[in-house]
Amino acid sequence: MRKPVRIIGIDPGLRKCGWGVIDALDNRLSFVAAGTVTPPTDGTLAERLVVLAAGIAAVLAQHHPDEAAVEETFVNAGPRSALILGQARGVVLVTPAQHGLDVAEYATNLVKKSVVGTGHADKNQVELMVRTLLPTANFKGADAADALAVAICHAHHRVSALRTRALA
Amino acid sequence: MRKPVRIIGIDPGLRKCGWGVIDALDNRLSFVAAGTVTPPTDGTLAERLVVLAAGIAAVLAQHHPDEAAVEETFVNAGPRSALILGQARGVVLVTPAQHGLDVAEYATNLVKKSVVGTGHADKNQVELMVRTLLPTANFKGADAADALAVAICHAHHRVSALRTRALA
Repeated sequence: MRKPVRIIGIDPGLRKCGWGVIDALDNRLSFVAAGTVTPPTDGTLAERLVVLAAGIAAVLAQHHPDEAAVEETFVNAGPRSALILGQARGVVLVTPAQHGLDVAEYATNLVKKSVVGTGHADKNQVELMVRTLLPTANFKGADAADALAVAICHAHHRVSALRTRALA
Repeated sequence: MRKPVRIIGIDPGLRKCGWGVIDALDNRLSFVAAGTVTPPTDGTLAERLVVLAAGIAAVLAQHHPDEAAVEETFVNAGPRSALILGQARGVVLVTPAQHGLDVAEYATNLVKKSVVGTGHADKNQVELMVRTLLPTANFKGADAADALAVAICHAHHRVSALRTRALA
């Protein structure tokens, strides 16, 4: 009997970092867990990033995903916002990789297209489709929904993504 | 006999990340070591960030600094460049903090002012003054010079920075 692949999707953020874990066996997806890491807003930036990394590491230790997928950050904001988001994103990318996971990245538009069918869906549509695709999903908040959407996107694209990598 | 404080300064970058370690006892500074971590330019972003984190961790393990100082990234570039630099910077901030070090941040202008006397010095002036202030310094490259400048800046400002923090 084949074993499902366990995927963690992560929606990076310094104040709210969503995460969602699913199992995927071919086209069958099932919900495992989801939540949000919320580092304190006080303390130095380095201290806040340590809490973020520890939060992600705790999820990895509890749920043992096989692969990770991270949303590519939207850089329509100014350079200062992009820098802040980039700092959180660096920690979110490096932590699962330090635990030995392959970490794929997906553009926001591709995530939305995979889940809703169009690259211009709003947050409510994404959450609604995540709950439809994962009927047993039990989570709160748009950040966890976005993270589950990234995990679903990876489930759809991981075979071709891994094949591209093997050829590279 | 009082013990000097050992400071690591880091100039973040994904391709070239400069680091410099000095000992500071009041106004007396002495060079310990400096170099550049150069992650591979191929591989996934997560893999490159893992090499960056491992490179910084190796320097911490070898030289055992007491405190860290990181240059605040210049965000005059576009949001995409700021995001890339932010990702490297997040890893550079979190790694020493995960090793238990306090990590201070200093604006580029303050670093230049501390070392050269003006906030608008160019790279050559910074390197020249670093070599003057640390006569035994033995290093190559502008990134290592910038990192040593950050360490020197922290040596000058650490007491007031720590006092501000204790009051906060």
